[in-house]
Parts: sequence; structure tokens; C-alpha cells
Amino acid sequence: MTPDLIQPGGTIGILGGGQLGRMLALAAARLGLKVHIYAPEEDSPAFDVSFARTIGSYEDEAALAAFADSVDVVTYEFENVPARAAEVLQAHCEVRPGAAALAASQDRLVEKQFMASLGIATAPFAAVDDAGGLARAVAQLGRPSILKTRRFGYDGKGQAMVREGSDLSALYRSLGSAPCILEGFVPFTKEVSIVAARGVDGSFAAFDVCENVHEHHILSLTKVPAGVSSETSAEALEIAQKIADALDYVGVIAVELFVSVEKGREVLRVNEIAPRVHNSGHWTQDGAVTCQFEQHIRAICGWPLGSTRRYGAVEMRNLIGDDAHAWRSILAQEGACLHLYGKAEARPGRKMGHVNRVLPEA
Amino acid sequence: MTPDLIQPGGTIGILGGGQLGRMLALAAARLGLKVHIYAPEEDSPAFDVSFARTIGSYEDEAALAAFADSVDVVTYEFENVPARAAEVLQAHCEVRPGAAALAASQDRLVEKQFMASLGIATAPFAAVDDAGGLARAVAQLGRPSILKTRRFGYDGKGQAMVREGSDLSALYRSLGSAPCILEGFVPFTKEVSIVAARGVDGSFAAFDVCENVHEHHILSLTKVPAGVSSETSAEALEIAQKIADALDYVGVIAVELFVSVEKGREVLRVNEIAPRVHNSGHWTQDGAVTCQFEQHIRAICGWPLGSTRRYGAVEMRNLIGDDAHAWRSILAQEGACLHLYGKAEARPGRKMGHVNRVLPEA
Repeated sequence: MTPDLIQPGGTIGILGGGQLGRMLALAAARLGLKVHIYAPEEDSPAFDVSFARTIGSYEDEAALAAFADSVDVVTYEFENVPARAAEVLQAHCEVRPGAAALAASQDRLVEKQFMASLGIATAPFAAVDDAGGLARAVAQLGRPSILKTRRFGYDGKGQAMVREGSDLSALYRSLGSAPCILEGFVPFTKEVSIVAARGVDGSFAAFDVCENVHEHHILSLTKVPAGVSSETSAEALEIAQKIADALDYVGVIAVELFVSVEKGREVLRVNEIAPRVHNSGHWTQDGAVTCQFEQHIRAICGWPLGSTRRYGAVEMRNLIGDDAHAWRSILAQEGACLHLYGKAEARPGRKMGHVNRVLPEA
Repeated sequence: MTPDLIQPGGTIGILGGGQLGRMLALAAARLGLKVHIYAPEEDSPAFDVSFARTIGSYEDEAALAAFADSVDVVTYEFENVPARAAEVLQAHCEVRPGAAALAASQDRLVEKQFMASLGIATAPFAAVDDAGGLARAVAQLGRPSILKTRRFGYDGKGQAMVREGSDLSALYRSLGSAPCILEGFVPFTKEVSIVAARGVDGSFAAFDVCENVHEHHILSLTKVPAGVSSETSAEALEIAQKIADALDYVGVIAVELFVSVEKGREVLRVNEIAPRVHNSGHWTQDGAVTCQFEQHIRAICGWPLGSTRRYGAVEMRNLIGDDAHAWRSILAQEGACLHLYGKAEARPGRKMGHVNRVLPEA
């Protein structure tokens, strides 16, 4: 029995109470574990399925310490855990994935530099610290290019396109004059992602590469298998493993990649990594022997990773905002597996649920 | 919108806090519903995954009424809900399945008489109200035969074999001199069960018939498909539907049947019915598009029933008592799907979890 090993009956602490925390909690429960959710919002969906709940801010060090003392391992559903919160938690309890994963994924510039250090291709990039820096970066990377805040961007928030004729100063101000990164435009033909897991013992298991379609910067559809060559799939897996190994990673990690075709060959570039379960891995709930949520729980408990075998061709559609009002007709569709997150209000752009469909593979 | 229809975000009340209640709660959560568990035991496994909890006895009418007022529909994980408790609940809230299902399944004599009224075969039986009655019943049905208490029997509890030379008075006293039923011995070759669901609108959907192996009167193994003819499978389905229709049933129902071979033909006799999700339906969690727990939730919410399509040949093994200590090696087996119930103590005979395995069908 290693100290790394959590026993059934143990308690998993999860930072964040959204749908990812909720689905992690459900997976943990299936495995006989208890869950303690820590989240600032009183109406966090994950609270409804958890053994224990703490409503607290990520700056409340006393509450964080008490939380960490009450659980056997801490994990999180989002990468923007403040560094100080992670430090406080780590002083009391194992945090998985660890601080290196948070550092590498919270800041787009650090993330890209980390990829470069591993020899992994990304979009070309340049740091932007002021309006003058933006002008220099645009001169270097050309137009179109994409200006993004280094931190706290998600679902297209915190980014703006630099086009011919864009007013650079206005654009920079529109992002709050925050530290930014400019990314050169990648003429990609597809967006794919790979969801994989690394165990405490360094074992590694990846789900099949999946293809993603975004609408208004929000994931709309995931299809697996992805329409890429087996060489490209193998390369994606290698990239994910290289990243996970470099971070001495424990848990599920998602790597989003652009696929472009250059000189007749598919070329992969990492867009971003997420040190957590990921929306593009939801298909595994109904389409694979082990789902990503169980896989994450297995990994952070020091348990063997589960089989990533796929049951067929799988499609996952997000239900955004009003989409969720179609729940009844979706329930009536043969073979549709509906997942709803228990959110009270279907605000525009809000992820309310998703639908998985598993089809026998041709 | 009918009053029968529960909306996502609604609250399901569940009587009973064991593993069945827990797995119902997990299925409800996946569908965006909240769960309120009512159970007498403070350490009920289902409490750990529920939105609200009431610790109360099934005789506490005030607590039952408050519980019913707090939810949109009430269901239960066990058939021995006291009739008075069901009445109290029904005065405040819809209870599904309804009182007829409880009445037909709580008392083995009533259950057998109900089957007879539908023209459904069972073991031959006779009521036993005293030691003299037992002697008369044994004279009628012969030895071996099985004496069972009419109420509160499960997993082999409350029953005794009448063999050659058995002391009938002692046997009757060993069951507490309670009202009993004597069942003639059925020389069955297999035990099978069918788990099916009936919706509020009378729609009906059955999972494939499965074959069950008991050890020490406790379910040990379920295999699907069952080794019976397609005619026998079709007949089992007809029996289940006839029962469900007669009870104007809403929810998942399980029907256990004996298969014997008489004059070269398979003959089915109903052993007992369970007006709830059932251990022999656990294979559906990993082996079918919709699991029995989700199916039950769909039915009691007035939602369309889900697809019962099977993914392959499936095997479910119960983890009884110490079996659960093998959790780590089970986790390491390719394709094994482990479910643990979060029970603190692995007492002998206690159901601690189960393992599903889905194999491509030959």
C-alpha cells in the first residue's frame, strides 16, 4: 500500500462546482468514493451530488486549508486555480494534477513557450505587453492574427481578431490592456483533440483522437473517430504523452490541436492544453469502456487506468442555452444518451447538457 | 404539458438509501434532476450522492408527509414499503409504481394468487397459517417443498426447505410461526429474469432476458443473453408486459422466472416479481444504451422510455462481503467496469458492489 493510493470509501476534494465537477462526482460515486466540492457559487450544480460542500472563495485560505484537511486528494475542474490557493492546498494534501500543470496551462504565453521547449509545434506567437508591443508583434506575424489575453480566456472570451485595417490600440484596450499574446493565423482544416490520462506510476492511456466543431467559439460537436490519418492520430498521442511526462502529470489531460494540410501532409499544432477533464471527452461516457471522469478519478487515486476501448462511432453534441429545451424530443430519439447538468437557467451561451450517440462502426 | 410530466430540475423522492437508491440517484443526476432520499439509517449509501436527505422511520407520518411535499414524485428501492406509509405519501404526492404493485409483491401468497388470476404459471403453492396447515400443505405438494414467510423475505431469508424427515412443527417455528406459503418444488434447469419498464402512457420496453446464478440464495452472476430459446424469451417478455399492464404499472419491474424442461420444451414459471430496479438488471449500466436506473427515472417522470439495445454479451458479477477487497485487481482487468456502493463495512453476505464485463457478441 503506497501513500499515493486512495482506498474506496476515501474522499475526493474537487475545486469547482460546475458540470465537470458534477460529472467527476458521479464517476467517483460509482467507484465507492465520497466527494467534497469546494466552490464559490451557492447554486453550484456539483453540490447536488456531493457528500460534502464548502461554499468559499479561492482566496479564503482558512477555508481552503480546512477543505484540504477533510479529503484524501484534491483535484479541480478548471485550470484557473489561483497559484496561492494551490500552494495552500498542497501544504495540507496531495493536489493532482500538480502545480506544474497549472503553471503551464494558466498563461497562454507560458504554455506556448513550454510547447516550444518540448519541440512541439504551435501557432507562431509573440508576447504583447502594451499597444506598441502589439504593433511590433503584428509586424512580425502579419494579419490576420489573433490577440488573446494571457490569462482567464475561455470559450472565445478574452480574444480578438487582428484584421486588415484593425485599430491596434483600440483592439488592445478592448481586452482590458491586459498582458496578451499575439498568435499567427494557422490555416487549419480541422480541430482535433486528444484526451488522455497519466497514472501516479507513469502509466499512460489515451482515448481515440476526436474531431471538434466550434460555433461562436464554443464547442458544438465532437466526432470520433476523427477524420485524420492513423499517422496523425499516432502523432497526437505522442504529443499528449510527451506533455504529460514533462509535467509528471497525474490525471486526465486534454490537448487541443489544429490540423492543417501542408505539402499534402497533415500537420499538427497544439492550440492549448487543459489539465482536467474536457468537453471534447464527454463522448467517452457512453462510447468507451471507461469514461474520462472515471479515468481521472482512477488516476488521482493512484489506481490502474481503465480501458479506453471505443464501442463504435460516437458523436457528442453540446446543448447550449435554449438547445436544452429540446430535452423531451431528444429523450425520444432512439439511441440518444442525454446528459443534463441541473442548471436552473438556460442563459445564452451556457452549457446546459450534451447528447451522446453511439453508432455501430462501418 | 401534463401534470404527470416532471421537468428537468425537478426533485425525485426515493424511499430507501441502499445501493439501488444510490444508483437511481446517480441516474437522476445525469438527467438534470435532484434527488431527496428518505431512509431510516444514518449511514445510508444513497445519502452521499443526494441533494436532500431525511433520516426517518417508515412509521413517522409527519416526516413522510413533509418528504412527499418536498418532491415531485416518490419512488422506492424496496417493495416492503409499509402500506400505511404508501397511503400517507400518496395523499401528498404521486407514488410510482403505485399501491397495486406494492400489494402484489409484498406478500408471496397474494403475488402467487395474482399470477394465477392472470393465467401465469408459478410453482404450485398453498397457504400455511399454522403447523397443522403446514402438514396439510406438505401432504398436498409433497417433499421437497419450500416453506416461506409471506412477507419480508429476501436473499433466502425467511425460508426453509421441507425435506424427507423434516420436523414440520420445528420448521414452522423456525420461521417465527409467521403466516407462510408452501411452494412445491420446481425442478428448474435455469433461473432467468426479465427487467422491463412501463411508462405513464402505457408504453413498454424490456431489456433482454438474462440468466442468473445464485450462491447461498444471493445473486452471484447474471449473464445476458440467457441460454434460452427465442420463443422462451418472447414468452418472458409477454409475461412481464401482462403483469405490468394488469398493475397499471409505472417504472421498472423485474420478473424472476424458473425455466424447466418438460417434454422437451422450456417451460417458464414466475418465481417472484420486484416492483423496482433489480440486481439482475445491473448489467444494463455498461451493456445497454439506457441503464435500468435511467429507465426507471424516465418512466416515473412521465418521459419517453429509452432504448434497451444491448452492446454485446454482458456478464455481471456481484461483489459480496470480502469479494470487494479485490477492487484493485478488478480495476486492472481489461474491460471490467467496477461499481462500488460506498458501504463502510464488508460484512459477510453484504452486497458491496458489482463488476460488469461487455464482450463483443459471437
